[in-house]
Amino acid sequence: MKKIFFWILLLNFQGVLTEAFAQEDSDKYIDTLIGKMTLSEKVGQMTQLTLEMVSKGDGYKMKSPHELDEAKLEDVLLRHHIGSILNCAGTPHTIEKWGGIINKIQEVAMKDRLQIPVLYGIDAIHGANYTIGATLYPQEIGLAASWNLELVEQAAALTAYETRASGIPWTFSPTLDLAVNPEWPRVWESFGEDPHLMAEMGVAMTKGFQGDDVAQKDRIAACLKHFVGYGAPKSGKDRSPAWIPERMMREYFLPPFQAAIDAGAKSIMINSGEVNGVPVHASKWLLTDILRDEMGFEGVAVTDWFDIWNLVERHAVAKDKRQAVKMAIDAGVDMSMVPLDLDFGPILISLVEDGEISMERIDLSVRRILKMKQELGLFENYKVVPGDYPAFASKKHQQVAFDLAAESITLLKNEAGFLPISKKSKILLCGPNANSMRPLNGGWSYSWQGDVTDQYAQEYHTIYEAFVNKFGKKNINLIEGVSYDMAASYDVDQWVNPEEITKAAEAVDYIVLCLGENSYTEKPGDLNDLSISANQRALAKVASATGKPVILVLTAGRPRVIHDIVSDIPAVLHTYLPGNYGADALSEILTGEVNPSGKLPYTYPRYTNDLVPYYHKVSEGLAHNDGNEYTEPFFNPQWEFGYGLSYTQFEYSNLEISSASMSRNGSLKITVEVKNVGKRAGKEVVQLYLSDLVATVSPSVKRLKRFQKIDLQPGASEKVVFKLEEKDLAFVGIDQQWVAETGTFKVCIGGESTQFELVESIK
Amino acid sequence: MKKIFFWILLLNFQGVLTEAFAQEDSDKYIDTLIGKMTLSEKVGQMTQLTLEMVSKGDGYKMKSPHELDEAKLEDVLLRHHIGSILNCAGTPHTIEKWGGIINKIQEVAMKDRLQIPVLYGIDAIHGANYTIGATLYPQEIGLAASWNLELVEQAAALTAYETRASGIPWTFSPTLDLAVNPEWPRVWESFGEDPHLMAEMGVAMTKGFQGDDVAQKDRIAACLKHFVGYGAPKSGKDRSPAWIPERMMREYFLPPFQAAIDAGAKSIMINSGEVNGVPVHASKWLLTDILRDEMGFEGVAVTDWFDIWNLVERHAVAKDKRQAVKMAIDAGVDMSMVPLDLDFGPILISLVEDGEISMERIDLSVRRILKMKQELGLFENYKVVPGDYPAFASKKHQQVAFDLAAESITLLKNEAGFLPISKKSKILLCGPNANSMRPLNGGWSYSWQGDVTDQYAQEYHTIYEAFVNKFGKKNINLIEGVSYDMAASYDVDQWVNPEEITKAAEAVDYIVLCLGENSYTEKPGDLNDLSISANQRALAKVASATGKPVILVLTAGRPRVIHDIVSDIPAVLHTYLPGNYGADALSEILTGEVNPSGKLPYTYPRYTNDLVPYYHKVSEGLAHNDGNEYTEPFFNPQWEFGYGLSYTQFEYSNLEISSASMSRNGSLKITVEVKNVGKRAGKEVVQLYLSDLVATVSPSVKRLKRFQKIDLQPGASEKVVFKLEEKDLAFVGIDQQWVAETGTFKVCIGGESTQFELVESIK
Repeated sequence: MKKIFFWILLLNFQGVLTEAFAQEDSDKYIDTLIGKMTLSEKVGQMTQLTLEMVSKGDGYKMKSPHELDEAKLEDVLLRHHIGSILNCAGTPHTIEKWGGIINKIQEVAMKDRLQIPVLYGIDAIHGANYTIGATLYPQEIGLAASWNLELVEQAAALTAYETRASGIPWTFSPTLDLAVNPEWPRVWESFGEDPHLMAEMGVAMTKGFQGDDVAQKDRIAACLKHFVGYGAPKSGKDRSPAWIPERMMREYFLPPFQAAIDAGAKSIMINSGEVNGVPVHASKWLLTDILRDEMGFEGVAVTDWFDIWNLVERHAVAKDKRQAVKMAIDAGVDMSMVPLDLDFGPILISLVEDGEISMERIDLSVRRILKMKQELGLFENYKVVPGDYPAFASKKHQQVAFDLAAESITLLKNEAGFLPISKKSKILLCGPNANSMRPLNGGWSYSWQGDVTDQYAQEYHTIYEAFVNKFGKKNINLIEGVSYDMAASYDVDQWVNPEEITKAAEAVDYIVLCLGENSYTEKPGDLNDLSISANQRALAKVASATGKPVILVLTAGRPRVIHDIVSDIPAVLHTYLPGNYGADALSEILTGEVNPSGKLPYTYPRYTNDLVPYYHKVSEGLAHNDGNEYTEPFFNPQWEFGYGLSYTQFEYSNLEISSASMSRNGSLKITVEVKNVGKRAGKEVVQLYLSDLVATVSPSVKRLKRFQKIDLQPGASEKVVFKLEEKDLAFVGIDQQWVAETGTFKVCIGGESTQFELVESIK
Repeated sequence: MKKIFFWILLLNFQGVLTEAFAQEDSDKYIDTLIGKMTLSEKVGQMTQLTLEMVSKGDGYKMKSPHELDEAKLEDVLLRHHIGSILNCAGTPHTIEKWGGIINKIQEVAMKDRLQIPVLYGIDAIHGANYTIGATLYPQEIGLAASWNLELVEQAAALTAYETRASGIPWTFSPTLDLAVNPEWPRVWESFGEDPHLMAEMGVAMTKGFQGDDVAQKDRIAACLKHFVGYGAPKSGKDRSPAWIPERMMREYFLPPFQAAIDAGAKSIMINSGEVNGVPVHASKWLLTDILRDEMGFEGVAVTDWFDIWNLVERHAVAKDKRQAVKMAIDAGVDMSMVPLDLDFGPILISLVEDGEISMERIDLSVRRILKMKQELGLFENYKVVPGDYPAFASKKHQQVAFDLAAESITLLKNEAGFLPISKKSKILLCGPNANSMRPLNGGWSYSWQGDVTDQYAQEYHTIYEAFVNKFGKKNINLIEGVSYDMAASYDVDQWVNPEEITKAAEAVDYIVLCLGENSYTEKPGDLNDLSISANQRALAKVASATGKPVILVLTAGRPRVIHDIVSDIPAVLHTYLPGNYGADALSEILTGEVNPSGKLPYTYPRYTNDLVPYYHKVSEGLAHNDGNEYTEPFFNPQWEFGYGLSYTQFEYSNLEISSASMSRNGSLKITVEVKNVGKRAGKEVVQLYLSDLVATVSPSVKRLKRFQKIDLQPGASEKVVFKLEEKDLAFVGIDQQWVAETGTFKVCIGGESTQFELVESIK
């Protein structure tokens, strides 16, 4: 035994040495390369242009179909030495077309003196969503609602495969913007409101994209975005200012980024907004003091779209582009997503020549960028080989997309076990989301706003098509009642034939009402009223007035308020933005072939002006009582974070804790038994919440600390074990440092609860 | 001439000396007194109990009519040496009754060993609102809407007179809570959303209350509240947490307090909420480092209601009352508004005896409290002399209340000069606010929630009564359509006889629709939807559908959203909470006897989820344009801050600036000519806004820096001159310090604008 142990040690040691030597070699390679580079070549590496800049056509007015412009390409790559190109010009491309684009770009890049490959980046945020025929998964908010880390990691790995199959080694994903404002138009691009769920999901997705070795030909580099505080705009409007006190920044917003950085994320994209009055692109505090010095991030920090230029007019902190570049570089930017002009390079060169920015500062960023290219294996494998990716959009990939949709869809209301329904049911299908792929996929699907989805996703099923497949064409009557104006802003809808609904309802068993939102992202998705649209609310009243039972299917990127229509409706399902297999999954949930197991990743508000997260402070959830005091607990959302029903029932019992006390360097085991006491197999998300009963900074009523998704046959039970340590008990204290204070903590799992004490040491 | 100058100098010098000697005498008196006091007597001074604690009955269940309980009084004052009592038990009292209460309290206090008079405090926030027959002015938000500093100072002075006439030397007013969240139920108790308007108003009110010598028998001590950040709850709910980054705290929230402190305010009340996770009652940073060390406040810091005890359960920062007292005293509290038990004293005594709080710390607070009593002249004049206040509720006082209502009511819409209307008009008067004094006065009127106002304000006029007086009984038909449930929560209303409106409208010229809110304050006034109530919106549609022109009169404490009803309505008047003469003023505005001159002290939002102040950052007011960029200025409230129409027109011209450049220690004179080009005399608020075009912290689109209300006859014009200095150009910079940066500034007055440069120095 001892001998074997020795050999293992030796082998390990050799491994460590080999790795160290390899690292040294790599570093030397990069250093040598930097040593050869001119200033112009260096700032070229720090520049990222959009595909339009090397394509035929003029700016946003692209030639269609897309064609690279060889002259532009040579100018950009050989004269300006541009190091990175991004995204998708105009419409999506086939895998073959992408291969051609990328390989052509790299061929030209190789004509340059130093033969540095271009780093191509794209918003592949729910699959390779700019590649025709690629597998599109649910959007992030749906991934979060699945609470299934393994599936999420798998989906990210398959996204990496299909993105790399398209020749692209870098995605601008995952989004780790804590969505604390439900009005924000990018809630659906995030994992919701909870820092712990977001951190776990962000790590799973980062690992899925990058694997153990991001140089492998089925892996891509992740880009965490948008550092930091982007999901908390005070006004709810996209790219508008956030007020985030340092304590909240540290306690809520930084931890998901820290977790994904620790998991090895290669790059980060910067928040386009202002935090506490300072545009993050100009914030040395956030981009250097926090991100580099405290959090230890060593990868590439890239700006968001136009955001150095935006320091001039949108933020008014720089008087001209030159000052803007100086501020951004001083703050800590490595790469400028310029993206539509060639001014960045000459300005940066002149700043260096004038001594305003040092060559060391330039080299720091260039080294990070070249290192990322090296880690991606681009110096060796800069081209994509046609036929190398046979599993592209394979059944296996599709199954994962289906499974994630099936596990994310959340049953929010099911009066008297109303669902599931028989496959022989006659259904009147209504609502603007009933027969379009566009709302199922949301933004960043085949185009920025997701507005061309119905053209490119014809082989997948709308809700209507999936229902026809499942219930039979003769059993499905489609009358939309309200439809979107597909040519207008996402929030424009109109009445169509609603009067037919009342009559048609007579012939059916159920009305399935598909409400929510049309696709959007970013600023075009801003809203002024969190209620679901007036026409859709009116349609719900028409449907309910028929007397036929209504099943409400919500497909929306954020929790649109529905309190005035929901009381008349016996069953509600929230699909979020479930992707190309969402309608299929929905239909199997309706029939009971799939037992729903999604849980809300955000608080679903009841009212437009009562927007409070589940982890609010005690004083945020109190009402006035008759005794003139404000002591009544009163937290009244439509549905709470973590909520979601099943067609079976789970019983929690025997919550046990390994000790009534825990010392600072100790740990606790918490065990709970979960039993499926219903008649169907089902999955349950076991959620552990912790409450610090007294703390010098007012504690939240509860915080999610652990979760595990389990699968139980009828009658089966499972003991779920969680471990807590001191750091799980900590908060950001008066002096802005993480601290755990001795005292009593309460643990809740399911309906069960217990308490323990944190003590300095166990005597 | 030289001789005279010498004598003036000598007299001045003598004055200074006399004052210095007097100050030394006073200090010595207080020191001697403190030297004689036992610890129990000291903590008694730091304790404030509610009147219930010395009255017959049990806690909130008072004997009615109110009677002092001599045994309780002796226990509280002679055994516990309590230094302060507050507020009004049960129902309001006559001036004679108040005199009896106060004098009896002081008589008993004088039986104590050291004969220290009790400091009685009350929420006299819009007149002596707990004294029957006192003059009730518009609430603060209305005072702010008048933009008339002289009138506001006068109203405060008359409030001081009538409060002191009731024997009470201390009011918990003015409120300087920047109301940045329009959902907050105490918006109306504040001067609105702008720091400059709030600072100016706060100084006027402080000076009005305190005069030059607060010991005079017609003056009272002010109490600035609620220090600090209370008006910015993240959720909009009363007493709930605020997120205020330090930069915003310094730039927006502290300046109004600083201005009133510099104007000599004697006391301050603490914010009941949490700022950045820390309850302000436990925040040494805010109560000592900022308030004392930076802002130089030397007066008394009193807690709000129950707020030391609230550190235990509401904020969960203290495990018991003892820890709560320790935290609050360590943070900087001088006086605990306990208010309903006697635990504070013994706990504080034991903390001192155990060495956890020093005697020096106790003496610091006791000295401040005794000094305030001394400055109020209470050691000499602790009793009120009946008959000493002949001007109580005199015509002069009433006229000021009327004038303020008249100058605050704001004309928000007047299509085609629709208003004013003839005195012979036939009017159908509708809405829940049409015939009640309660909504006109709001909370803190005769009782906490203002719910007994109709009983105590019978001699004043409801809108119906004022209209009958003005237009004649036969011309006014009252059909409410919607009425409040006066026994329920403030926000409960119901349909009454709305069907009669359509028919009754046939016989009239106009419908005057009186909508808004019933009275409330604090937590009972929380809302979940900023829209005006559904019943009231439906009523507006009934009224508009009659085809008769509708005049909408809004009486509400905050800007309730009305966008879906207002387009059909040709004229809108906002009365805020105009007090007992509000209806009289409204009727004279309708007839044109008074020309409206109020201007909005807040942004009136158009939508429930689009809540952005006028001084938003550039990036907060942008929309998406067709070119895929977010460059379209887009600020879209219903009405902007500072907006308000007149029956005449004012023309701005000849905006002149004394120099195109200003050096750091220099100043600029800005002149504008305003001419009344209409046919009626009218008042205009000339508002100077400054925009810093580029700054290292993103600047607001504009900030109010100066204003002046002027009165112009038809055809008359006036040159208004403003002076700006460096400090007017400053903001709170990256390092949290105030800084003005060189560069270009834009000045806007009316429709006119000009620019100037701040330079280091003029060469």
